[in-house]
Order: sequence, then C-alpha cells, then structure tokens
Amino acid sequence: MKKNSIILYIVGILLVFESAFLLLPLAVSFIYADGNWMWYLLTVFICLALGIPLTRIKPGKNLSLKEGYIIVALCWLVLSLIGALPLMLSGDIPEYVDALFETVSGFTTTGASILSDVEVLSRSGMFWRSFMHCIGGMGIFMFMMAVLPMLGTADMNLMKAESTGPSVERIVPHVRDSARLMYGMYFGITIAEVIALLISGMDLYSSLLLTFGSVGTGGFGLLNSSCGDYTSAQQTIISFFMAASGINYTFYFFIISGKIKDAFHIEEVKYYIGIIVASTFVIALNVSKLFGSFSEALHHSFFQVASIITTTGYSTVDFDVWPELSRMILLILMMIGGCSGSTAGGIKVYRVVLLMKQLKRELSVLRHPREVKVLRMDGGVVRESVMRSTNVFISIYFVIFFVSLLLISIENYDFTTGFTAVTATINNIGPGLSLVGPTCNYGFFSVYSKLILIFDMLAGRLELFPVLLLLSMMKPRRK
Amino acid sequence: MKKNSIILYIVGILLVFESAFLLLPLAVSFIYADGNWMWYLLTVFICLALGIPLTRIKPGKNLSLKEGYIIVALCWLVLSLIGALPLMLSGDIPEYVDALFETVSGFTTTGASILSDVEVLSRSGMFWRSFMHCIGGMGIFMFMMAVLPMLGTADMNLMKAESTGPSVERIVPHVRDSARLMYGMYFGITIAEVIALLISGMDLYSSLLLTFGSVGTGGFGLLNSSCGDYTSAQQTIISFFMAASGINYTFYFFIISGKIKDAFHIEEVKYYIGIIVASTFVIALNVSKLFGSFSEALHHSFFQVASIITTTGYSTVDFDVWPELSRMILLILMMIGGCSGSTAGGIKVYRVVLLMKQLKRELSVLRHPREVKVLRMDGGVVRESVMRSTNVFISIYFVIFFVSLLLISIENYDFTTGFTAVTATINNIGPGLSLVGPTCNYGFFSVYSKLILIFDMLAGRLELFPVLLLLSMMKPRRK
Repeated sequence: MKKNSIILYIVGILLVFESAFLLLPLAVSFIYADGNWMWYLLTVFICLALGIPLTRIKPGKNLSLKEGYIIVALCWLVLSLIGALPLMLSGDIPEYVDALFETVSGFTTTGASILSDVEVLSRSGMFWRSFMHCIGGMGIFMFMMAVLPMLGTADMNLMKAESTGPSVERIVPHVRDSARLMYGMYFGITIAEVIALLISGMDLYSSLLLTFGSVGTGGFGLLNSSCGDYTSAQQTIISFFMAASGINYTFYFFIISGKIKDAFHIEEVKYYIGIIVASTFVIALNVSKLFGSFSEALHHSFFQVASIITTTGYSTVDFDVWPELSRMILLILMMIGGCSGSTAGGIKVYRVVLLMKQLKRELSVLRHPREVKVLRMDGGVVRESVMRSTNVFISIYFVIFFVSLLLISIENYDFTTGFTAVTATINNIGPGLSLVGPTCNYGFFSVYSKLILIFDMLAGRLELFPVLLLLSMMKPRRK
Repeated sequence: MKKNSIILYIVGILLVFESAFLLLPLAVSFIYADGNWMWYLLTVFICLALGIPLTRIKPGKNLSLKEGYIIVALCWLVLSLIGALPLMLSGDIPEYVDALFETVSGFTTTGASILSDVEVLSRSGMFWRSFMHCIGGMGIFMFMMAVLPMLGTADMNLMKAESTGPSVERIVPHVRDSARLMYGMYFGITIAEVIALLISGMDLYSSLLLTFGSVGTGGFGLLNSSCGDYTSAQQTIISFFMAASGINYTFYFFIISGKIKDAFHIEEVKYYIGIIVASTFVIALNVSKLFGSFSEALHHSFFQVASIITTTGYSTVDFDVWPELSRMILLILMMIGGCSGSTAGGIKVYRVVLLMKQLKRELSVLRHPREVKVLRMDGGVVRESVMRSTNVFISIYFVIFFVSLLLISIENYDFTTGFTAVTATINNIGPGLSLVGPTCNYGFFSVYSKLILIFDMLAGRLELFPVLLLLSMMKPRRK
C-alpha cells in the first residue's frame, strides 16, 4: 500500500504538470481562433480532477531504482493517454489509437506520424503535437525536478530511469541543481534556434514548432514536405541545431564553465562529430549525381545525416530514392543515434564506442593473453558493471527488435517497410524507408501494429528497461 | 620462428589430408569418365609438393589458444584456396573468385552458389563441391585429430577454435577419443541417410551428395530445383536428417550410451525441438492457402524450417513467395541456427537461450534487488565467463553483420537482397530472400562483394574470433 501510494502521488503531480502544459495549446487556440479551446480546457479539467486528489496522498520518502523505473514508464504512458484526448476530441485525429500513436510519437520525440496530410491540422493541434517534443526531449521528470523539490532520494532514481545512456552523471552534485542546469541549457538552445529562424525571415509560429522538433530531436513538421520548402539558409540553421542537440549536454556545461579544452576532449563527442563528418562526406559523394552541384549534395547530405543520427527525422528531400549505400549509412546511423545525455534516441554513440573498444580488447587479449587490459573512456577506467549493462542493453535491443519485426510481419508488408518501421520507432526517428519513407506515413498500419510500434517508441525513449519492467509487472507475481 | 614452425607444420599436414580428400572426386571422374581426372591429380600433386616439405619441420608441442585460432582460420583459408583449383581448371567454374566462393561455401557448409545452372556441372565437380560439406561439417581438424595423434596439448585448442558453441565439451576425457566418437556418430548418421535414400529409390550418386548436404548442413544440391523434384518420401527423409543434424551431438552420445533420459534433458535440445515444432506449425497455418491441403503445407513447412534452422538451405518450394510472416520466421531462424556442438551454423540455440535467461534475470534483479540469482543451464550454474563471451559474441556478430551490409550496399541492390545475402552467408545458410532467394544465386555480385561474403562465410563457420584474429594479425604488430 505504501509502495502504491508513492506511485499514485507522483502520477498525481504529473497530471497537474500536464494540465499546465495544456494551457499553451489552449492559448494558441484562442490566438488563432480555431475553435478547439474547449477540448483543451476539458482535458485540463480532467487532469486536475484526476491529479489533485492523488497529490493529497502522503507518500514515504524512499524510492528504489525498480520503483523509479516503473513510475517513469507508467507516467509516460499516462501522459500520452491523456495527451491524446484533445487531438481526438477536436477531430484533428478522430481515431483514439491514431491520436495515441501521434502523442506517443510526440512525447518520445520520435516524430512518426499517421497523418497523410499534416497541413489540415488545426493550429492548436499542430502546436500541441510539436510541443510534446519540447516536453519529452529533456524528459518530463527532469522538468518536474527542476521546478519543484520532489522526494529527496527519489530524484536520483527517477533521473536514472528517464535519462539516456549507460550511466547517469549528475553534472553538479545535487540532482535538483543538475536538472535545473540541464533545463537551462535546453531552453538556451531552444531560444537560440527560435531567434536564428526569426532572423532568417520565418514567422514565430513556424520557428517555435520547428525548434521544438529539432532541439527535442523529435521531427514533427508543419508541412507535408517536412523541411523541403524552407530556404537553404533556414535548412542550414535547422541542420546545425539538430546536430548540436545530439551532443552530450556535459559538453555545453564545460563550454559555459569555460572549460573549452575539456569539452572537446569528451571521447563520445569526438566520435559523434567524426561519424557525422565521415557520413556526410560519403553520402554527398554517393548522391552528387542527383543534385546540381557537389555543394548542394553536401547541403542535403549534412541535413539528412544530422537529422537521422540525432533521430530527429526531418528531411529536405526524399532520401528513400537515394542509392543503397546512402540508405544503408542512414539506416546504421538510425541505430547508432546521438550521444548519451542528449535528447537524441538510438543505441547511443557511447555504447557503440564501448562495444568497439571491447571488441578490440577481446582480440588483444587473445593476441597477448598475459597482458591485463582495462577499457578506458575519457581517461577513466570503465567499470565492468557499465560494460555488462551495455552488453545486456544491446542484446535486449535486438531481441525486442526482432520480436517486433516478427509481430508486425503478420500484416504482410514488404521487408524493408517492416524492418525500417521498427528501426524508426525503437530508435525514435520517425521516417524509415519504403512505405514508411520520408514522404509517407504510418496511417496504413492496423491498430494491432500501431500498438506494437507505440510500445517500441516508449521502449526506445526510456531505454528498454522501464518499459519491460512495467510489462513484466502486469503478470501476476509468483509468491 | 618456433611459433611459425608449428603453423607451417600443421598447414603441411592439412595439405596432405586435402590431397587424400581429392582422391575421391578423382575416382568419381574416372567412374563417370568426365575427363577431369587430370585436374584433380594435378591438385593432389600441388598439395603434396607444398605439404610434404612443411611436414618435415619439427615443431614444439605447445600451442596457445591464440595460435589455435590462427592456425584454424589459416588452414580453412588454405583448404579453400587449393580446393577451388580443380573447379577452375576443369572449366566447371572458370573464374577463380567464383570457384573460391563456391569452395568456401562448400567447406563452411553454407551452400550459397554462384551458379545459375547447377545441372551442367561435371560429375566430379559436383561431387567435389558436395563432398566439401562432408569435410567441413564436423570440421577438418576434428577429422585430423580422429585419424592421427596431433600435437598433444595443441589438440584441445584446435578443437576449441573449430567447434561450435560458447564452450567446448569433450564428451569423453581425451580430445582424440572425443574426436573419434564425434566422427563416428557423424558417419553413422551419414550412412543411415544414404541407406534411407537408397531404399526410397534414389541412385547412389544423388543419395551420397544429398546426404553430404544435409548431414553437414550444407545445402548444395544436384538440381536447379534444389529438393523440389524429389518424391514426398525422399523430401521427408531429408527433412528428418537435416533436423537431426542440427542437434547437439552430446544428445546422440547419451543415446548410444543408453542414457535416454539424460539425452532428452539437454535444455538446448528441448528448446531446439520446441522452436522447430512451433515454427513449423505457424508457417503451415500461414501458407496453408498456397497448398492443396494442410498436411501438404505442413510437409513443406517442416522441410523449410528444418532446412533453415539447421542453416542447410535446401528448399522444396520457393519460400521467397511465402507471406511476410513466414519469411520473417525463417529469417529469424536463420540467425538462431542449430544447437552448439552440431554441424549447423548461426548464433546457436544455446546462446539464444542464455540471452533470454539473462534478460529474465536482469528484470528479476530489478524487481527483487536483494535476491541473488545465478543462471542455470542443464541444472548447472553458467559461469560468468561463458555469459560474457556470449554477450561479446552477439555484439561482434551484429558489428560484422552491419559492416558487411554497408560494404555490399555499395553495389546498390535492394535492401532485402543485401540484408539476406549477409544473413545467409554469415549464418552459413545459402539462400536468402529477393535476388538471393531459393530460386536465385550469388553470381551477379561483383568480385568485391563476393570477397566480403567469402569473409562472412568463414567468420560464421569459425564463430568470428579466429577470422578476426587472423585479420588483425595482418596489420603490423606494434612493439
């Protein structure tokens, strides 16, 4: 009972926060007079009516990592279940499962859409959908912790469960200060991009929504052409902010602390930049014939690489028609994803680098059996527990991947569609290839497949364990 | 120098063995008077001319695991490089790289072919190609150890490097006795299938070649239709022998030792049989509309499941036209592969079961942090080192997989072709889907892609490490 009380209490807090978030699309609805304000107001009341009684519960102060995982998974689910309501009620997305797909896609910063025509959405619906990226990008608990003192020791375990990468580092000693700092940097980058886009001549509404999509590495756009119809300068601004959003936020912390040299010595960041540069160059060479000049090829190649490795999913052109080499590079970038401690999804560069170092060590151990080799990252020794959890993560990742692939293959779509639909959802990207390519959408899938992909989006965003744990709790527990 | 001497000595022994193997196709060439005998005789002389001087070297008696790995990888390469000669010289496969592809495919029991028309091969060429499955199935070193006393302590490390699965168990205390016993069972199963096929009315030549292909889990056939033109009874015989060949040979050891109960208590075997039964049933339901009756669907489904999970690659029908669910089940079976300690390829059921148990343990540790959980297999505790090597194996497997996929995507074939070509070679299956489906072949790939796929076949058969180690030795060693 005491255990349940803390879960219910935190769900209550979450609902109150959600009601506050909903005030923004409510305001947008008033400004543009699109007539949907009452649906947002109704949802605000639903949040408060459910949430406030729950916040009256007085919970204990302790929270285990297990409970942290379960609470985070549960809260993301509740957030999405409620968040989908105004989209459905306003008629923007009349089917509830579709609205839920779109909402989970929004909060998990996937950016996969079931809409064949994005442009018919109401102003408030479109705003809400993109604003979800902003909320989900850095994480809802990170925001809650930044704003109010939570539950003492609970904070660290909630932070562990929600943030990305194999190990959580508080950049400053206190969890709450870390959360504030992270959110501060997050909003700093957000404001910088909005200003840059405004200067480029874009209107405020579009600037805001595209910024939510790029800084949160989400990928919901305003136009059916994604980013294809913006000016070259605007596309370049978006590329750079996407690439910047896939970087470990510790980098920015070092920068604002004046430790420029330390910032550029973070190994993960170096590899991340290296992968972007190499991929951009190879793809530009590979697609150069499709464009008027090499510099144009480079422009679109950089945009696409930045969009895909950060798991954003914006596009300037239809990369599904690019040659197979470019498509495969993008597919592999989808799986790699951005840095740990960023807003990006995927396996994370940190884990991939660790994996490669491990491979090198295993070969080295075989070659020189008497030498003792430790794995080093950023100068420090990598603990065996981090190594082990990374291996377990990769293994479970592929297990979930292939089980999902098998389950959606029942629908009998082609292999490329099925494979990349799972890739694009579990890595929180958005578009895949073939029938789920950048000019297409996920609307054609059955409710059954949509539910599997919703699971994959949540599993990907929360890095598998919280969602699996929640799933395993649904079975009756053996005594 | 002393280190090199042992490597050269063993290569010498290997070449003498290869010359003996070549006497069989030489005899076939005489019997059928196909005029190719001189090319086999020439290759016998080349083997002896290179091999005999090397066997004069007096090596030390010690061999590290590292050297064992390198020798095994090197020997499989030499075996293939020489084995390809008569195929090229006789004009059966005029291009050397094609002949090498076919030979590596033979020895690694992959069964992938570059031939668009198998039926025009000479009798001796076709025999040699299938006989490679027989040699490679249980392993060339296993045979060498069974026949002559090798190098004392060297044997165990050579056996470790060549046999399949995460841990090698000598079924009887002495390596040499184990090797003899394994080969005894291998030939027992071979003779049983030949007799069964002869009774079914098949001629001796076809019976022998199909048996080499099924007991070695290779997959080279005699007809362009693979196994499609044989009688239903013959197909059923082949199905059962394929399925039987994917079972851990310890099972048969228990059976012949009278420990029937122990045999059926091997966990890996239970899961293996469970996977076959479940997959056969689901696929039969999924494809039932394509066949006249459910029993016919079941017949073809069982044949295909047995062929694919054991990584043989025979087919009775074109499973590339089956519905996506069936194709995906087969694709996943390709990756799982047969049992460890069998002639089958793939990741191995043992590793997959360990992975699932590990996943269950990780969730259980999160749910009940204070409980100490150990992984058990067949009643015994799984050592952490086995667990770790399994995780490393899976990670490296996917690294090699995606690097290969990227490298062959330069050729710009469709995703399904590239993906399943890599799947079918690294897991030693043979046919994949789309352009490399069961009615197609690998002839259209460039020399560049063929070399990558040759690497994948060797890496798959020797379970990654020996081949990677050999590759890493090619770089100059840092002092």
